[in-house]
Order: sequence, then structure tokens, then C-alpha cells
Amino acid sequence: MAPVTENKKGQSEPSQSGEPGRIHLSNPHLEKMEEDILYHFDLGTNTHDFPALFGDVKFVCVGGSAWRMKAFAQYIAGELKLGDPKDDIANICAGTDRYAMYKVGPVLAISHGMGIPSISIMLHELIKLLYHSRCSDVTVIRIGTSGGVGIDPGSVVITSQSVNPCFKPEFEQIVLGKTIIRSTELDGPLAQELAQCSQEIDEFTTVIGRTMCTLDFYEGQARLDGAICSYTKEEKTQYLKAAYEAGIRNIEMESSVFAAMCNLSGLRAAVVCVTLLNRLDGDQISSPHDVLVEYQQRPQKLVGYFIKKHMSLV
Amino acid sequence: MAPVTENKKGQSEPSQSGEPGRIHLSNPHLEKMEEDILYHFDLGTNTHDFPALFGDVKFVCVGGSAWRMKAFAQYIAGELKLGDPKDDIANICAGTDRYAMYKVGPVLAISHGMGIPSISIMLHELIKLLYHSRCSDVTVIRIGTSGGVGIDPGSVVITSQSVNPCFKPEFEQIVLGKTIIRSTELDGPLAQELAQCSQEIDEFTTVIGRTMCTLDFYEGQARLDGAICSYTKEEKTQYLKAAYEAGIRNIEMESSVFAAMCNLSGLRAAVVCVTLLNRLDGDQISSPHDVLVEYQQRPQKLVGYFIKKHMSLV
Repeated sequence: MAPVTENKKGQSEPSQSGEPGRIHLSNPHLEKMEEDILYHFDLGTNTHDFPALFGDVKFVCVGGSAWRMKAFAQYIAGELKLGDPKDDIANICAGTDRYAMYKVGPVLAISHGMGIPSISIMLHELIKLLYHSRCSDVTVIRIGTSGGVGIDPGSVVITSQSVNPCFKPEFEQIVLGKTIIRSTELDGPLAQELAQCSQEIDEFTTVIGRTMCTLDFYEGQARLDGAICSYTKEEKTQYLKAAYEAGIRNIEMESSVFAAMCNLSGLRAAVVCVTLLNRLDGDQISSPHDVLVEYQQRPQKLVGYFIKKHMSLV
Repeated sequence: MAPVTENKKGQSEPSQSGEPGRIHLSNPHLEKMEEDILYHFDLGTNTHDFPALFGDVKFVCVGGSAWRMKAFAQYIAGELKLGDPKDDIANICAGTDRYAMYKVGPVLAISHGMGIPSISIMLHELIKLLYHSRCSDVTVIRIGTSGGVGIDPGSVVITSQSVNPCFKPEFEQIVLGKTIIRSTELDGPLAQELAQCSQEIDEFTTVIGRTMCTLDFYEGQARLDGAICSYTKEEKTQYLKAAYEAGIRNIEMESSVFAAMCNLSGLRAAVVCVTLLNRLDGDQISSPHDVLVEYQQRPQKLVGYFIKKHMSLV
């Protein structure tokens, strides 16, 4: 059976509530539920006052690692003058180890683990959290790590479009055993605005490019150093060069479903990832620890500056 | 292009080293590498003595949650009389928050996060770890949580075969943009042996059945309580009833790639998951915390007993 293609739910369309800027919940069943337990956040609508806890959220920053998202929350506390960056900060999801969540003023920072399924669970529960909290005009930014394609390690890539391993801007969602194709476009003006922020900071190279999203880190990304590898070095190089020719500048594992779900929910979304290596030069991430730590701070710095600008703090 | 089907690499075939029971590494490139950095474990062959650290490993138990795998390691320490279960136990991967790893005698316990991509990264690095450590005759068991289909919450399911959302025993691996189909069969005698252990413990219901492995928790598992849902309750029920008719007894998110990669590497493998709810009755996991905690101990108890039996401790 041929896959069904869904229309993009743009922000200009009226949301379910009829109010512009509100979260669009593409699920009529939820209205009938007396309680909604966000199991993987260990939060529930009958046990937590969502509007009081999260109603003022305007920026949601997500990334794979719980440690990195905590560090980002602490950094943002300092930047927004809402706390000392050295102070400890409470994990809102302390009752579970699936995800970690931190809140600093209008900024929510959440970890999502690795891969499409892991970030997808988080996004379902995040979108419901924002809806139950009656949030409006929310921007969601993934700040992550990636492998670069034809660019220097440490470069930051702002994703124009997430593409699959066949270089198509599509995300395949399986629903009741049938495949649905969803759009993976990201917000163009937001990407431009973030690129402008990088120019103003002027500390590292940032490019706007396509991001390839894969289902695994080794074979799916043409690495030669996994436990299983059935192709030659030449075939690998050919594939990565074809990716470069197709406008791909980095490879990661979450952007496609992130773009698709934010599109369907009327959320302005961006993906900002630093590259830890240039995959045309190798596969192993072997830079010294302090170099990798500094690289990982770059998307945080860029997005921190963007948020400060929106809050008229720069 | 039609997907390519790979042959199963059975344990009876000679492994790369030529010695029976040794790990089969399906990657000729690794022999040429001077160093192998297992990035997501924060371990490397030039910085860690793998045979000394892991050479005696015979049982590897993996599960999604880092907290649960630590609790399992502590439980096993007590059961094997190798330590006090109340004692703290060191995380071998303390330098990263991607995975957590604990070792108790011949037992290695590792967390794998949620979803196929996340467990796949861990398995690539685990298989290389076992290979570099020159381990032999290793059994790998996933002890996890799942949604039940037509069976009471708290039942334990031992997977006969992992199937995709179309109920086929296949795992699709994308390599250089092309789809390869891999077998998701699991070790039949091992499943029977585990079922026998459950009979001997006689504390909870255990069945052998097919496990459906999905790419997400909400739409992919026909839930009505995600942020996005385009189907009716009747369509959901019809799909889950068809799954039951096809021999599926539970649904989770890691078994297919786990079976496929263990097959290719000559590892004896099993999947033992407790069901937290019966999906024919609902979608939300709303049982009290203490009930869920007790459920989650059941696969641990079963696999702990199995290990003790193999070490002639029962």
C-alpha cells in the first residue's frame, strides 16, 4: 500500500482552541479524559497544577543528555540573571530516570535520550504539557551534537530541513501498521534569526544546511567502526559525498520526528547542533574531553543569546 | 528497490576467531584499528584493559532504565552472595550519562534507554566490548517493561519472536540508504529454559509469545492518549485484537534490533518483559507506584533465578 502524505499544520492555520499561538492538539480523544498521566515525566493533571507550573513557558530547549540540559539550565539562569549558574537546580521529573526537566523563568530545558523513538515519547508528553498549561507562542529548539559532513569539527549547523537516509525531507510514521509520510520542514525565519545571532556572537562558524536523521549511529551513518559493517571504505565515502552534494551538512538521530511533530502542533521549531567531527575524515569521536565539552557549549551559547535577545536583555 | 534479506548468523557457524562460543564480529575493518573508543560507554581499548575488566562475563542483562539496572545489579550481588544488596555499586560508565553499566561477578548489567536506535548504539558497543574482552559463551537477556495484549497486568512475557507493526518477524536496517531485512528470531531452548524457571519460582504468570516492537509509544502502539491521534477507539481495538490473533502478547520498543544484532553476533539471546497494563483495557499506566515497582522486579527475579541455576546455586 502506498504511504499517505499528511498536510503540514502551519502556525497560520487556526489552532484547535481558535486562539492564534496556542498549541494545536491533533487528538480529539484527550478532551474526554478526566486525568492525563504523563508517565515518562512522572507528572499528571490531577496531581500537578500545569498552568501554575508551566503557564509562562515561552522557550523549550531539548537535548539528548540529561547532564547537558542541566548545565544549560544553569547557564541560562546566569544569562537571564535569574540565579547563580553555580547553584543546583531541581529536576522537575525527579520521580523518573527517563527524562530530566529544568525550568528557569520562561525557559524549559528537557533531555530526550538518543534516537527518534526516545525523543518522540518526550515530544508527545511535552506537547500535552504545554497544552494543559495553556501556553502560547512557544518556540522549541533542539540543541544537540552531530557528525559533520564536509565542515570543520566544532561548526554549528542550523537545520533548514531534516532529510532521511535517502536524502528526502520525509518522516515515516507507522500508525496501526500503515505508513504515513510527514513533512520535516523547519521554520525558515527562525533559522535565519538564529544564524544572525551567531554572527553577532562571532565566536564560531555557523551554517544553515540540511540535516540527515538516521535510525542508528553505526551502519545507518555509514560508520566503519560498529560491531557490524558490510560495506567498504570507498562505498562509505561515496555515500557521504553524495550526502554533501545533496546539501547535507550534518547527521544526527532526532531531527525528523522533532520537525514533524512540531509542525503538526503549531510549534515554531529549530534544530541547532554542533558537529563533533567531520565524517569525511573519520568515524571515531576522539577529540580531547575539554575540546568536546567546549564544542557542546556552542549551541547553548547561541540559543542563550537568542533567548536574551527576545527578552530584550541584549 | 526490493530490500535484501540477510542470513541468520547462528551460533553453530564458526565465529571469526574460529573458536566456538566466541563473539562473531561482522566487521573486517575493526581489526585494522589501533584503538577502539566506545564513545557512549566512555571506554577505550587504549585506556582500559578489556580482558581484565570483562573477560569473565557470561551473562549480560540489559534494560531501559539506569535506576532499574542498578537495582538489578544490587539484587544479583545478594543472590549470588557476592555482596550486600544494600551496598552502593560503581557505575563503570560514570564518565557519561548515555548509559549506565554495573558488573557483579560474571553478570554485566547495562541500561539502554528507550527505543531501537538507543539500544542499537549500546549493542554495537557491547558486542565490541565482549569481543575485545575475549568473552565466550555469553547469554544476553533484555529485562524490560511492556504493554500487554490480552493478558493480565503483571504477567511476564518471554518473547518467542519479535515482530514489526505489520506482525512480520523482520527488522529493517537501513545501510547506505538501502533497506536490509534481518531476522528477529530468538533462542527457542533459552526461552523454554526461562519458562521452566518461572514455573519453579511459581510467583507470577509467565507466557511465551510474540512481541511487537514499535518505533514509538503513542501512535505506533495505537494509543488514544498521545498529542497526535487520527484513529478511532474502534480502529485501535481492531488493530490490537488482530495483534492478539497473530500471537502477540506484548508490545515494546527494543526487541527487534536486539534479536537481529544478537543473531548476527552469535549471542544466545532472550527478551523477558513484564506487562504494566492490558492494552485491550486502556492506554494510561495508572497503577499505584508500589504495584508498578513490584511488577518491574518480576523479570529481575526470573533472570536472577536462571543465572543462579546456571551457577549451580539453586
